[in-house]
Amino acid sequence: MKTIQVNASRSYDVIIGNELLQNLGNFLLSVCKRKCKVAIVSDSNVWPLYGNTVEKSLADSGFQVVNFVFQAGESSKNANTYFEIQNFLAENRITRSDLLIALGGGVVGDMTGFVAATYLRGVSYVQIPTTLLAMVDSSVGGKTAINLPAGKNLVGAFNQPALVLCDLDALSTLPDSIFRDGCAEIIKYGVIYDADLFAHLAEQGLVFDREYVIARCVELKKKVVAEDEFDTGARQMLNFGHTIGHGIEAQSEFAISHGQAVAIGMAIVAKAGCREIYDRLISVLKKFGLPTTTEFTAEQLYKSALSDKKRAGGTVNLIVPTTIGNCAIVPTNVLELKSFIEEGL
Amino acid sequence: MKTIQVNASRSYDVIIGNELLQNLGNFLLSVCKRKCKVAIVSDSNVWPLYGNTVEKSLADSGFQVVNFVFQAGESSKNANTYFEIQNFLAENRITRSDLLIALGGGVVGDMTGFVAATYLRGVSYVQIPTTLLAMVDSSVGGKTAINLPAGKNLVGAFNQPALVLCDLDALSTLPDSIFRDGCAEIIKYGVIYDADLFAHLAEQGLVFDREYVIARCVELKKKVVAEDEFDTGARQMLNFGHTIGHGIEAQSEFAISHGQAVAIGMAIVAKAGCREIYDRLISVLKKFGLPTTTEFTAEQLYKSALSDKKRAGGTVNLIVPTTIGNCAIVPTNVLELKSFIEEGL
Repeated sequence: MKTIQVNASRSYDVIIGNELLQNLGNFLLSVCKRKCKVAIVSDSNVWPLYGNTVEKSLADSGFQVVNFVFQAGESSKNANTYFEIQNFLAENRITRSDLLIALGGGVVGDMTGFVAATYLRGVSYVQIPTTLLAMVDSSVGGKTAINLPAGKNLVGAFNQPALVLCDLDALSTLPDSIFRDGCAEIIKYGVIYDADLFAHLAEQGLVFDREYVIARCVELKKKVVAEDEFDTGARQMLNFGHTIGHGIEAQSEFAISHGQAVAIGMAIVAKAGCREIYDRLISVLKKFGLPTTTEFTAEQLYKSALSDKKRAGGTVNLIVPTTIGNCAIVPTNVLELKSFIEEGL
Repeated sequence: MKTIQVNASRSYDVIIGNELLQNLGNFLLSVCKRKCKVAIVSDSNVWPLYGNTVEKSLADSGFQVVNFVFQAGESSKNANTYFEIQNFLAENRITRSDLLIALGGGVVGDMTGFVAATYLRGVSYVQIPTTLLAMVDSSVGGKTAINLPAGKNLVGAFNQPALVLCDLDALSTLPDSIFRDGCAEIIKYGVIYDADLFAHLAEQGLVFDREYVIARCVELKKKVVAEDEFDTGARQMLNFGHTIGHGIEAQSEFAISHGQAVAIGMAIVAKAGCREIYDRLISVLKKFGLPTTTEFTAEQLYKSALSDKKRAGGTVNLIVPTTIGNCAIVPTNVLELKSFIEEGL
């Protein structure tokens, strides 16, 4: 078991290890009063797998528990589900002294974090990411959001959790495709920050060391968050592959998953921006069974990228790797973005 | 013209004076870039009165302007309108470098402030309160929110504006009943904080000195906000009359206005908690044409008060005046709340 302390406007621990869910009640005693109510938000994939374990552990520690389970999938990360959860909390008289738990992947975590930021103008919440992607990315750093019809993550808040528990056992129940989604993000960390991590992934492929790799990604993210909690500078590095990736997700109406879209986005940017690492990146992405090309046209991707929120006026900040382990923020005029994408396709 | 600087997590000016709307463009130059887009949110009462003036001033200063106007009234302060505004901003490609303006009363201000807190995880906004109530209360201090079916202001954020402009000329177009609503809040400030202010109101009635009284209320609120931005202690004082008042509003399905409900709420609390000031309070409320009694039963008000968010577990914090100009926070067990209300009716 590893514990990593994240220092942002609020400091909190990220705990990585086995059998954490069975001991959830004990972990919570460090972040709330024994008698507080706990409202668990989860989805229709995750709750049947872990709901009983979690409820039993919380009851054994003396917590009152209510739960809200919604239909799994990115398409649930919307205004409707957000307000259904808010109404559920109000009906169950959850107060500012109570606690929310996000039990699931990135959709559950992003939405629950945003609900926690805004219900009664803020209640504490704990992230229990059950996917690889959520463990290394969305559950750490406090960026929470929901989607609008016009694009992903357009409405949200910066809201740090009180605690993050990454139970490695949860990875064993992940469908292959979902596991690979997370791999796209850890490959991203290797490319932009850490040549050793990239080398480990290139060598080991899908049998990489879970605890080492997840802890390393959390440490890398922790540094970025400490430097730039509110996403005005260094944190943009984490968007490598994402500006175009979000466009691919949106164009496919979320038939292409986040991880697959980011993999394709990284490949496009590397091909257009840094041929030196392109071959090595493609080789690792393929080793992990991730896609590297798309049928969408440059015109389609360009239009989607423009609706992405990472715009400041007429400029898009693209993250372009320079070597394995390093990258640069390249402010790109929106008029040049289309030809950049064309080069990368 | 008076300028009061509010110091919270963000510092900003509250400017009180005449002819501010005609000069809006100039004031904005201090808080955003000349070329930024400005999205004005307003309602169907206020926009026809001031829309042209505001648009002209902004255009003269070189700003691009878009506007979103919704149906006036508390019943619009809900999830639907909130997301309509969010979608409107996304469709108009408003970015983090742009600016929102809330032009209207408390409903417009609360909702726009919450939209600004969460669109793209936060964009700057300017409050232009056009009612007395909004000038002395909701536009200063950064408490923003929308209503849920279960109660008022249950979803929101703490989000300080970049600037507040109180144009006294706007008060001249206010319907009598709306003006009196604001009077309930300024009487509240007198009761809980300032015997001189209370004396001025008791003597002058509805012809009180606008600039003196509004500036005094803003100064009083400024002190409370500086002490307790996130509403965990001293700021609760401002809730005098509100816990029961919100219940009255909800029970009446908002047929009874906020100011009227607060007036009745203050009268109930004073009668039950501090008979010494009760007669003087009733006399001033009547001088301002405000109601002091309700037809609702203690049972109805008790149930509504319990859905109000200002609960911590089984306790409601009631604000009870001790003399004119001073009050106390009285934690009250919810089981005792009903008999307290009965005494006050």
